[in-house]
Amino acid sequence: MTAKGKKKQATGKATKKVQKKVQKKTANTKKVTEKVTKPGKKIAVKTTEPKVVTKAATRPDFAVVGKSPRRLDGPGKTTGAATYVDDLRVADCLVGYILTSPCANARVKSIDVSKARAFPGVHAVVTAENFPGDNQVGVVKLDQPLVVSDRIRWYGDRIALIAAIDRPTALRAAALVELDVETLPSVHDPLEALADDAPRVHTEGNLAAKMVVRKGDFAEALKQADVVIERLYSTGHQEHAYLETNGILAELQPDGGMLLRGSMQCPFYVQKIVARVLQVPHSKVRAVQTTTGGGFGGKEDYPSEPAACAAILAKVTGRPVKVIYKRDEDIARSSKRHATKIKHILAAKKDGTLLGAKAEVYVDAGAYLGLSAIVAERANASAGGTYVVPHVEVDTYTVYTNNPFGGAFRGFGAPQVSFALESQMDLLAKELGRDPLELRLQNALHKGSLSPTNERLRDEPQATQTMEIARDRCGWDKRRKAVAVHNATDRYNKKGIGAASISYGCCLHAGGQHLEGSASLVQVHPDASVSVAIGGAEIGQGAYQVMALLAAESLGLPVENIRVLDTDTSLVPDSGPTVASRTTVMSGNAVLDATAQITQRMLAVAAKHLETDLKHISLRAGQVLIDGKKSKLSVAELIALCFTQKVNLTASGWYAPPRKQWDRETGTGQGYSVYCYATMVAEVTVDTVTGLVTVDKVTAVHDIGQAIFRAGVEGQIHGGVVQGLGYAIMENLVVQDGKILNPGFTDYLIPTSMDIPEIDIALIEEPYDRGPYGGKGIGEPSLIPVAPAIANAVANALDLRLYDLPLTPERVKMAWDARELAEN
Amino acid sequence: MTAKGKKKQATGKATKKVQKKVQKKTANTKKVTEKVTKPGKKIAVKTTEPKVVTKAATRPDFAVVGKSPRRLDGPGKTTGAATYVDDLRVADCLVGYILTSPCANARVKSIDVSKARAFPGVHAVVTAENFPGDNQVGVVKLDQPLVVSDRIRWYGDRIALIAAIDRPTALRAAALVELDVETLPSVHDPLEALADDAPRVHTEGNLAAKMVVRKGDFAEALKQADVVIERLYSTGHQEHAYLETNGILAELQPDGGMLLRGSMQCPFYVQKIVARVLQVPHSKVRAVQTTTGGGFGGKEDYPSEPAACAAILAKVTGRPVKVIYKRDEDIARSSKRHATKIKHILAAKKDGTLLGAKAEVYVDAGAYLGLSAIVAERANASAGGTYVVPHVEVDTYTVYTNNPFGGAFRGFGAPQVSFALESQMDLLAKELGRDPLELRLQNALHKGSLSPTNERLRDEPQATQTMEIARDRCGWDKRRKAVAVHNATDRYNKKGIGAASISYGCCLHAGGQHLEGSASLVQVHPDASVSVAIGGAEIGQGAYQVMALLAAESLGLPVENIRVLDTDTSLVPDSGPTVASRTTVMSGNAVLDATAQITQRMLAVAAKHLETDLKHISLRAGQVLIDGKKSKLSVAELIALCFTQKVNLTASGWYAPPRKQWDRETGTGQGYSVYCYATMVAEVTVDTVTGLVTVDKVTAVHDIGQAIFRAGVEGQIHGGVVQGLGYAIMENLVVQDGKILNPGFTDYLIPTSMDIPEIDIALIEEPYDRGPYGGKGIGEPSLIPVAPAIANAVANALDLRLYDLPLTPERVKMAWDARELAEN
Repeated sequence: MTAKGKKKQATGKATKKVQKKVQKKTANTKKVTEKVTKPGKKIAVKTTEPKVVTKAATRPDFAVVGKSPRRLDGPGKTTGAATYVDDLRVADCLVGYILTSPCANARVKSIDVSKARAFPGVHAVVTAENFPGDNQVGVVKLDQPLVVSDRIRWYGDRIALIAAIDRPTALRAAALVELDVETLPSVHDPLEALADDAPRVHTEGNLAAKMVVRKGDFAEALKQADVVIERLYSTGHQEHAYLETNGILAELQPDGGMLLRGSMQCPFYVQKIVARVLQVPHSKVRAVQTTTGGGFGGKEDYPSEPAACAAILAKVTGRPVKVIYKRDEDIARSSKRHATKIKHILAAKKDGTLLGAKAEVYVDAGAYLGLSAIVAERANASAGGTYVVPHVEVDTYTVYTNNPFGGAFRGFGAPQVSFALESQMDLLAKELGRDPLELRLQNALHKGSLSPTNERLRDEPQATQTMEIARDRCGWDKRRKAVAVHNATDRYNKKGIGAASISYGCCLHAGGQHLEGSASLVQVHPDASVSVAIGGAEIGQGAYQVMALLAAESLGLPVENIRVLDTDTSLVPDSGPTVASRTTVMSGNAVLDATAQITQRMLAVAAKHLETDLKHISLRAGQVLIDGKKSKLSVAELIALCFTQKVNLTASGWYAPPRKQWDRETGTGQGYSVYCYATMVAEVTVDTVTGLVTVDKVTAVHDIGQAIFRAGVEGQIHGGVVQGLGYAIMENLVVQDGKILNPGFTDYLIPTSMDIPEIDIALIEEPYDRGPYGGKGIGEPSLIPVAPAIANAVANALDLRLYDLPLTPERVKMAWDARELAEN
Repeated sequence: MTAKGKKKQATGKATKKVQKKVQKKTANTKKVTEKVTKPGKKIAVKTTEPKVVTKAATRPDFAVVGKSPRRLDGPGKTTGAATYVDDLRVADCLVGYILTSPCANARVKSIDVSKARAFPGVHAVVTAENFPGDNQVGVVKLDQPLVVSDRIRWYGDRIALIAAIDRPTALRAAALVELDVETLPSVHDPLEALADDAPRVHTEGNLAAKMVVRKGDFAEALKQADVVIERLYSTGHQEHAYLETNGILAELQPDGGMLLRGSMQCPFYVQKIVARVLQVPHSKVRAVQTTTGGGFGGKEDYPSEPAACAAILAKVTGRPVKVIYKRDEDIARSSKRHATKIKHILAAKKDGTLLGAKAEVYVDAGAYLGLSAIVAERANASAGGTYVVPHVEVDTYTVYTNNPFGGAFRGFGAPQVSFALESQMDLLAKELGRDPLELRLQNALHKGSLSPTNERLRDEPQATQTMEIARDRCGWDKRRKAVAVHNATDRYNKKGIGAASISYGCCLHAGGQHLEGSASLVQVHPDASVSVAIGGAEIGQGAYQVMALLAAESLGLPVENIRVLDTDTSLVPDSGPTVASRTTVMSGNAVLDATAQITQRMLAVAAKHLETDLKHISLRAGQVLIDGKKSKLSVAELIALCFTQKVNLTASGWYAPPRKQWDRETGTGQGYSVYCYATMVAEVTVDTVTGLVTVDKVTAVHDIGQAIFRAGVEGQIHGGVVQGLGYAIMENLVVQDGKILNPGFTDYLIPTSMDIPEIDIALIEEPYDRGPYGGKGIGEPSLIPVAPAIANAVANALDLRLYDLPLTPERVKMAWDARELAEN
């Protein structure tokens, strides 16, 4: 079946499914008690009056920051004018195709590409044998061949790279590659992989990395504890399901360099790896991010691989080579949210005071390390949550298996661990007969507390605030009672309400601080238009819009005057990856560093021109102000004046946060520059006949520093809730012996608009003193609490705890039926 | 005939011509006396031991500056790998064709493009009537329609812009455009154009601009004078004859912006004019210079016009549009060196002391102003030459005619005026019975002298030095005598030797100082490779190599580590034009500003790492030095260390020279930031039977500050001498009633390798305190003295003065025969 055909069928199925759900919901609403759900209300987001807590005295009166002007990249994206990589049309372009492995683990006996190479229309077939460069890659550890030579370790391993005149030709050629292998026993579970007799994915063993947290003495906590909760949790792989699949165009440059344009999150990773593979200096590799249809972490490290493949093919053929993945290829080859197994133990006094947390976290890296150890680092640091926990003991194992490639995904290890911990908190509350939110409030971190990784908190964490606001806003107590009343009378549709609270370390972990710097390039043009370039990438999250608002505010210009250029390694130096909800803080501060240099020069010219002292002058909303009042000079006129006087209005900006102290041995110290807190409350209906969980409402309370682009903050929260909902109840990647059985949206279900609950947002805007105009991050905190809140709501609804994500109808139904069977 | 056919024929003719010339030369050599010429020696450049005069104490011991490493852009250009605009292949690209006028002056009655528009394969035909933007252009004055509406003023006027699938289609469509005009009387001589009853090119009259110099009182000079020399000179148009014709590729961007890539000298001009024509902000127009096959001033302002045409067609069609000129189109439409008429009066005492200079300079602007007034400004400022002249009176008239477009050309108005003045100096010497070089030495400027534009010279001008070295190096006295001896015995081959001396204001004139700033962007990468971007353009002159050497020297790295990026308006802000021999000083200082910022940061890290004080540390040739001795740290290691510590090694550089005081009313003041001095001696043989002038040797003595890229300096001098030679004796653009009759290299002859004389170079390297490592400019000074030196040598050979450039065989023969006729 063609891809098009598949897509059609998928759409057809989806439509049927939606219709079915609508019918079901309509049926359901008839039965619900007053005000328990608002079934007809879809995407009914209440954000008109979010509760905002702030020190008013410290908040400047912004002209554009905190507002929601139309996104500058909106028209292009909504009209189709935006140029995605597959829209790039260069002449003489070849199609690059990557032939991957037909098995999970094997010794390669021979790869014969002679027939493929001879096939008409084929320009090059590259294998390890004739690889014209350095074949070894890996973002952290060079443990991965770009093309395999003697060993296959997973289905995504590359056998041969093919450049051909078109895709059908490439596919035919790929079918002519003769691969002779001896299959080997494979391992697909991280716990099993750690056994001594497990098949070894790499000769040095399957434990790719281990990290720990040692704070206090967990044995002491156990001694003192009145209650101990110990459970084993598991989470499945999650597919990023970005709208645009991976794609890259490689063009050989006259000097042997390479231009790479494509869908990516981290152009500097692409630059670094392609330079390495081609064995050319960094200066000769330029990576430009084309308009990118989503990333979610899936385009952090992974795009470097197809980029290196395209680059090698472009080098060999001397012609542009474009590699565009079909959806099934993308799902099958690219990285996934790590499947994990987590053993979690919580020890507490009977009054609810937490004494200790112990976790064993098993992270399924897949066949190569990739970013797994880095993801694991955040999981490792998050196992104690947002609570005061005197004794913490975490052991995080990053384990090689023959499974799909684990990688970065929104939340970066925190969603898995938060699911376990926040489930534990509810179990503890239940055990103690306490309200779970109240229990959280009791243990919440405060200013001066020692965090679970033994960091003395410099600022007041907003943990308590997010909990209190969430509680008040959703009417927690009343709703808890209402669902209890409802459930007592409704046998088939159980209602539940659950909460989860998190803290998220914004920007990179101390372990990655060698990457923690970001740059900008700001050009003010003679006509008062402004070009802004950043090292961060726009992957739909609104980063460019945030930068435009920051630049506009700082330069005193309308936001329409700002144009943010496609992220391009030739415009700015290595600014680290676009991950860790770091772009607002890092790129934002870099933009403000540049605009500060520029405005300093502008203000000097203005002061001289207006015959006043520098300290009286400011810029705001198009006007030069003297002591806050409009002068005769507009900002546009001032800019023209600067050009006449040859005052340079271009600057290169930079930001690197203060160094953090971190002890790798004990996993303690200052893990992150700043933390974002969030509490979510989920309200669900569970159909006990089908096991289907419907999320009715999510109340999301976020501590975000100052909102820069308000609609963007809200958009991120909407997106995080929806993606978290998918993770919680429906996104089920079926992996059998290392093979993904549902690499397509026909079988791998993601939320549709019909699945979106009412989302009620409240923002706590306490400016972060080191953030751009006080901003922090929101990309990931918006997802992390969703699954545990939903899981807790489901447990509340069914009075039944499930330990494995996702909570698919089958799993819920099976657990429900098992208990019914046991009880009756 | 196809273009290819034409080219073949042209090559055939050229070959024949060369053979003929070789035969003739060989014949000639038989007749010459001992050592007078070295006929077999072609491109026999003696530069092994150029005389270098310098204050040794002030010259640092450079690692790479002043050396001649292989040009980084050499391999691409010599192997064909470099990407010129016509090598850019983008899909769906249309051919843009510009239909120009069939007459020199007319009222447009109607333009009917309906048939052209309906022609299959035509995507758009744009005329003034349906022009989708602002149709009015002009780099200084908006006096020019991009496409004409009601009036035609010269043959280059654009009637319609056509976008079609290919060139033949466009040509056929062009032939279907029905143009109805009423031709008007036209004017083709700047003097005639100033008459009251002359046809008016523009309604407000034909005097486009006037400027003056008023220093002292020329009437007083006349009163005191013992000798007065008054002559009328004329110079013809010169074609730039760059290897690559004009070409541009315009690509509409998703946000309505435009990307322009092409052959250009001034990307910021292209950006500005395209933004204006499209009516979009500067931030949305990006101009990128592709590898450019020569400019010589011809790609200063002119490329903005085809760029605007291509942009308009791209906007209308929504497809990429490429405009590439055929050679005949390029010659016919692009700007030329201005034809001038110059009335020059020199007044002196009988002891040779100059008293006054008066000049009336008539500059033929063509139909629109373009850069003519700016070119005229330099002509105006150069009429007093490099001499102490108490009384100066210059009137420079920039005049509209219906002739080809006058524009920037290497020397920028100075070659014409220098031809007149330096001819005058020889006439004066002859009149006084003095040696012409000795007369120049007597009157040369010194430190503290008032220049002809009344500027008190801050530095010792190297005028005297260039004259003395030239005199000594060529054996002036001996050669003067030798040719006299020769000429007495040889009736057919007359030998001559002549000198000319100039001073050239390096960088822009004070009148253009609103453009006089330049930027750079320097990125040091983690692997110690470096990307350098400048606002200056590489047009073959070696600017990128100069920047690479400066960056390498400053960063203490090998020059191979440096990569200079294509000049791109998104990388750096408006850096003014690449003209006026300003790139070494302006872009060079901007690069050093950036590298100084970077090395400052590097040195701080090094000092800390090496536990020493900052003042002991320096970087040189790959090593970190402590007190000049190698430390344990290499520069590459230091760079890696900086990246680990997140020390930013990218910087945006800027340079703007101190403001200059200039009085427009009197044309006096500080015209330029710094001056370059040069003296050339030409030795010629004139065939009195054919009138053919053969230049046997040129001795070129240049004051250049510090040579940065030595081979580049020498290359510029070679090129300047050859282009100046063409200007002097062969390049004859035949313009009849405004129409160029020889728009091709079949009829418009430029020097071939067979015409290149022996060139002996001497450099005076007195570091310029505000130059990058002491550098100044060389691009234009290398051309300006050539024509007057040759003219003086011809006058010396024939004892006959010619006043009109070029000294074609026909002109020389006619003058010779006329005198023979008169004398016999």
